[in-house]
Amino acid sequence: MAEDLTTPLLSDSEVPAEVPAEAPALKTSPTVAILGSGDFSRSLAVRLVACGFRVVVGSRCVNRIPSGLFPDAVELRNQEGAVSQAGCLVFMALFPEHYHSLLGLQSALAGKVLVDVSNAAEMNNHGPSNAERLAELFPDSLVVKGFNMVSTWELQTGAHDGSRQVLICSNSTEGKRKVVELARQMGFHPVDMGGLSAAREIEVAPLRLFPSWSGSILVTFLLFLFFYGYGFLRGILLPFLAQGHNTFYRLALGLVNESLPAVALVTLALVYFPGLFAAWLQLWKGTKYQRFPSWLDNWLQRRKQLGLLSFLCATLHGVYSLCQPLRRITLYRLVNTAYRQVKAGVEEPWDEVGVWRSELYLSCGVLGLGVLSLLAITSLPSVGNTLNWREFTFVQSGLGYIALTLSIMHTLFFGWDFAFHIEAYPFYMPPSYVLAVVLPCIILVCRCFLLLPCISTRLTRIRRGWESKRNCPVLQHHHVVANRIP
Amino acid sequence: MAEDLTTPLLSDSEVPAEVPAEAPALKTSPTVAILGSGDFSRSLAVRLVACGFRVVVGSRCVNRIPSGLFPDAVELRNQEGAVSQAGCLVFMALFPEHYHSLLGLQSALAGKVLVDVSNAAEMNNHGPSNAERLAELFPDSLVVKGFNMVSTWELQTGAHDGSRQVLICSNSTEGKRKVVELARQMGFHPVDMGGLSAAREIEVAPLRLFPSWSGSILVTFLLFLFFYGYGFLRGILLPFLAQGHNTFYRLALGLVNESLPAVALVTLALVYFPGLFAAWLQLWKGTKYQRFPSWLDNWLQRRKQLGLLSFLCATLHGVYSLCQPLRRITLYRLVNTAYRQVKAGVEEPWDEVGVWRSELYLSCGVLGLGVLSLLAITSLPSVGNTLNWREFTFVQSGLGYIALTLSIMHTLFFGWDFAFHIEAYPFYMPPSYVLAVVLPCIILVCRCFLLLPCISTRLTRIRRGWESKRNCPVLQHHHVVANRIP
Amino acid sequence: MAEDLTTPLLSDSEVPAEVPAEAPALKTSPTVAILGSGDFSRSLAVRLVACGFRVVVGSRCVNRIPSGLFPDAVELRNQEGAVSQAGCLVFMALFPEHYHSLLGLQSALAGKVLVDVSNAAEMNNHGPSNAERLAELFPDSLVVKGFNMVSTWELQTGAHDGSRQVLICSNSTEGKRKVVELARQMGFHPVDMGGLSAAREIEVAPLRLFPSWSGSILVTFLLFLFFYGYGFLRGILLPFLAQGHNTFYRLALGLVNESLPAVALVTLALVYFPGLFAAWLQLWKGTKYQRFPSWLDNWLQRRKQLGLLSFLCATLHGVYSLCQPLRRITLYRLVNTAYRQVKAGVEEPWDEVGVWRSELYLSCGVLGLGVLSLLAITSLPSVGNTLNWREFTFVQSGLGYIALTLSIMHTLFFGWDFAFHIEAYPFYMPPSYVLAVVLPCIILVCRCFLLLPCISTRLTRIRRGWESKRNCPVLQHHHVVANRIP
Repeated sequence: MAEDLTTPLLSDSEVPAEVPAEAPALKTSPTVAILGSGDFSRSLAVRLVACGFRVVVGSRCVNRIPSGLFPDAVELRNQEGAVSQAGCLVFMALFPEHYHSLLGLQSALAGKVLVDVSNAAEMNNHGPSNAERLAELFPDSLVVKGFNMVSTWELQTGAHDGSRQVLICSNSTEGKRKVVELARQMGFHPVDMGGLSAAREIEVAPLRLFPSWSGSILVTFLLFLFFYGYGFLRGILLPFLAQGHNTFYRLALGLVNESLPAVALVTLALVYFPGLFAAWLQLWKGTKYQRFPSWLDNWLQRRKQLGLLSFLCATLHGVYSLCQPLRRITLYRLVNTAYRQVKAGVEEPWDEVGVWRSELYLSCGVLGLGVLSLLAITSLPSVGNTLNWREFTFVQSGLGYIALTLSIMHTLFFGWDFAFHIEAYPFYMPPSYVLAVVLPCIILVCRCFLLLPCISTRLTRIRRGWESKRNCPVLQHHHVVANRIP
Repeated sequence: MAEDLTTPLLSDSEVPAEVPAEAPALKTSPTVAILGSGDFSRSLAVRLVACGFRVVVGSRCVNRIPSGLFPDAVELRNQEGAVSQAGCLVFMALFPEHYHSLLGLQSALAGKVLVDVSNAAEMNNHGPSNAERLAELFPDSLVVKGFNMVSTWELQTGAHDGSRQVLICSNSTEGKRKVVELARQMGFHPVDMGGLSAAREIEVAPLRLFPSWSGSILVTFLLFLFFYGYGFLRGILLPFLAQGHNTFYRLALGLVNESLPAVALVTLALVYFPGLFAAWLQLWKGTKYQRFPSWLDNWLQRRKQLGLLSFLCATLHGVYSLCQPLRRITLYRLVNTAYRQVKAGVEEPWDEVGVWRSELYLSCGVLGLGVLSLLAITSLPSVGNTLNWREFTFVQSGLGYIALTLSIMHTLFFGWDFAFHIEAYPFYMPPSYVLAVVLPCIILVCRCFLLLPCISTRLTRIRRGWESKRNCPVLQHHHVVANRIP
Repeated sequence: MAEDLTTPLLSDSEVPAEVPAEAPALKTSPTVAILGSGDFSRSLAVRLVACGFRVVVGSRCVNRIPSGLFPDAVELRNQEGAVSQAGCLVFMALFPEHYHSLLGLQSALAGKVLVDVSNAAEMNNHGPSNAERLAELFPDSLVVKGFNMVSTWELQTGAHDGSRQVLICSNSTEGKRKVVELARQMGFHPVDMGGLSAAREIEVAPLRLFPSWSGSILVTFLLFLFFYGYGFLRGILLPFLAQGHNTFYRLALGLVNESLPAVALVTLALVYFPGLFAAWLQLWKGTKYQRFPSWLDNWLQRRKQLGLLSFLCATLHGVYSLCQPLRRITLYRLVNTAYRQVKAGVEEPWDEVGVWRSELYLSCGVLGLGVLSLLAITSLPSVGNTLNWREFTFVQSGLGYIALTLSIMHTLFFGWDFAFHIEAYPFYMPPSYVLAVVLPCIILVCRCFLLLPCISTRLTRIRRGWESKRNCPVLQHHHVVANRIP
């Protein structure tokens, strides 16, 4: 047994492989067959050997496999030979389009567990999954879907925290049990996804591109388009048409930097909207036991993404603003301001209000961005995991509202009283920041209402399980955080 | 067995639940009872079922529980029924204030293990813990405290790295052993905290708010108050009183940006003070086997927090400084400088020394902040965990002292020779940066002394276990890093 | 058994210790001996006791060990006594230079497993490893190397994700098996490294300083030296010698900020060079089954480090550029520009092209740096682990090439048409950015060629296992990511 364990490791010096997890598994030393000799087959063999299994690889042309590609302990045979040697587990490490080429082995594979490790070729194919087609081809075998999300790299170097899960599904509980056991012995966390009908979803998973981000990115992008388009109309196109005033150079930087803070502010408000709405819903219904509408549930789960996108926009706005003095146009304005003062023969007058305004809006902006950074840092998995629930709430809700308040103040100080002057409304269109600041202000006011003692007491009671008109006292444990609403 | 395992998973499609960890546990299929039907009860039931246990939930009003709230495999009964079905484990998932309502079940619960999962209601209650009160109410049961720090969310989605620990305490070793086994089968890391007297501390843990940060934040805040107040007195109030010179606009930004670097510098020095002090203490006592005084121990454990706060202040200082050219006051000064040159009829003269000064202090500042950023990045858990001890020391001690040196140089170049002119001492008060640079300089000089060959050799020997006057040669392994002092 | 488990925990209140992992291990309650009483010995004893083992510590002078240093459950004896009580495992927690002092115990230690936990004293010692010398001294014992990379701190607080591995090697499979089992029971992940000849490498591992970074840092540093030297020659030294024009003040900041972006750009190109080269190699050879030359393999594995260094340089360049307006020289230039305009009696003329140029290159620069930041964030282990393979490819390859394109555009817009004017070539030397932009442009063009349908189809087929002249259809699974080449 010990030889099984160590020999291949000695021969595979580059990749440290973890030692098998369970002695019993080694005792019986079951033979696992792998059909196919590609990268996945090779990595899987390395891992299985390192975990104390006997491995036999079946390939159509054994003699073409370069020596040294597989660990020495792996037996290389043709496909028939491999299947005949297999215990009950056979990994199908070949492309799904070649499954039918194995039809001759149908009877040899009968009763064995076939593990389909393939991925879907494309996202939107609505036909049967690879695993289901395999099950059709080999009706007498137990087909189990699994291991497709594990990369060859993870097989070789050992699983990391985020990638330890192995999703498994099958119509055969017996087959599933065996693969679950194997996965655990290989150091993975098997996750049972149910029957083979779930295979499609498992096969598509590695093809998904940030599924939890798409909605938030779309919203942010549309907001940007709106503010950019509005700013273009109000600040560039209409003035050009009306007065022939050419400021198209502002498209590249100035207008972007005008739209970004508006997007950041609205997106940040959108982070806190669903929580508030959920609270009002609970107050109104007088219970926490009614499910939220699904759009609200979805929105609640996207708050982190919205918050990070808001932070991204705010940071870009910050950097763009700091680039201001590097622009050619700034030099031009500065020099000409000085020139005009000289021509007029008077010093630039001291502008107390203007000085205060710039100090205040810069200050609020920097602090707001600083608080947002703290929020972003705690949203890193490795940092967030170390927080207890109260700390999480403090950061996400407490610091979040501080950031929102500072951002609103930044905007209001920036706007000063200009919004009350008629010149701020050329073509009757208010400046972007006026549009952007409305929703955040409403959110903040609603939040303040929730802090009123009479309302907050009632809300706390509801979240502890109290119901407004109840017949029967359902006792509740005080882990009150349904959906972690701050 | 396989049915127990898979049925609930199929019915609970949202939450992938990990498959049970140990086959033996499944074989016996012990029944676990949960009293209470709140969020925690529900999540616990989902997890237990997914781990292969039979679960019976006892509620006072079973018929009011919406169908579908619990997985299908969970049996819903009234409280008496649930207790009678229970194996030996009964979870008390109800509010502690309702414990007494179960007194009727006293005899039915006798001999069973009652798991108290409640949190403390408030931090500073010095009465008996919930678990102790439960033990008083049910003297014939084995009360075990545990699982209170696990959130419902972690129960449903599986434990993450930082939250895998389950603190457990009990006066009954038998009860503790059973809960420890259960916790392990559920994928958590049970941690034995001793007898039931530890329950208070466990109950309060989820209420704590960054306990390891409070001291460091207080120190940083007091330092900020001091420098801000000092700067206000010296730069704003006294000039205003003496000469009627109104510069109150500096309160919002200018003065903050003058205080922040001073705070950052002193805090960074405070990071390296305790390590130096410990080294000198070891040199003086001639041994590493004497415990440090507890204040020093505490301080040594807070270095990371102090360092991160120093980094925060330094970053804010950087951003505020970069905002400088955006301020209205900067425009005012620039234009008027140009105006005066023109009035005087001479070009701005070339100021070689001034140019060198600004280049040097900006350079040192940027580089110092850059090095500090590297330090901050390696203090992220997921990055720091990948470092071996030598790398950790190199980054924290080596790079740390480089950052300190660069920060001191930044300050000295900024100060130039102005500190030697009488105008820098209005009202006999030196500028903030002179006050701030003293401690760091002392730290740096002391550190350099430790690098002298005669001293460093002795220190290395002491840290390898050598003692100055020893009677008996105690052999030491050279993992010398008592307290990881760099 | 339960007493074994809990007693020591109660007595060691500071360090929460995890409860033993396997009940069977406790049943037999094997006694582990530790020779030596230093920090490592103490931490190891705490951990072992917490994991349910009986521990006996052997020290030369038992009476000098302060009471309370070891947990109460640990038995303190002299070395002979400890060895006689040991089951089969004896940890050698003393300095390797003291191994010979145990020669008297040679017969007592015969047949036992001696675990050598020592580190190498220095990197470049080419003599036998400590473990090999121990094996020579005790030829009748089974010497196993291991646990040397575990710090005392990790022993006490429990292993973290990055540090859970325990590298083990030995010539005795029996001894190795026992240590592997023990390591697993202590919560570590044992990794079998083969025979005792691997001990040297294991002993040296804790002394290594960022081994995977050295090459990339060297390359980046040499690039910086080159561009800095070139810039010094072209912009400072030669003008000084030729025209006596003193601009040495630029050494500290201006020249650094001119070199950094060049380094960042070339380094970023170097990230994408090996992947392209590998693709062309595969296209040329018509197969993916030929191993890459080892320099290419190495380079492919260093791309992350090169990318992060490129990001570091780009960030520093960004910060230095933002510092521009804070420089004394900028004030000097501004004021004198205004002065000259006034003297000439004309306003600064509107410079449409100059305005567009500055807007465009600033915009591209900020966006490029933003995209690079996203890349840097996903290279954090805790973030990267949550990505599936497609997301990883999208970020590293997709976003990477966008960042490269934006950086090139930043440089080209910055250069505008100046590169075509003769004044840009003083002393016939082109400006740095012209040199820096060549390689990135080549990389980008080559990459675009790979996107041509005819070539990309062929490449995809090769990566799915197709070979240009094959005799025998080797079937391949479509985990095609040999070496994860984007």
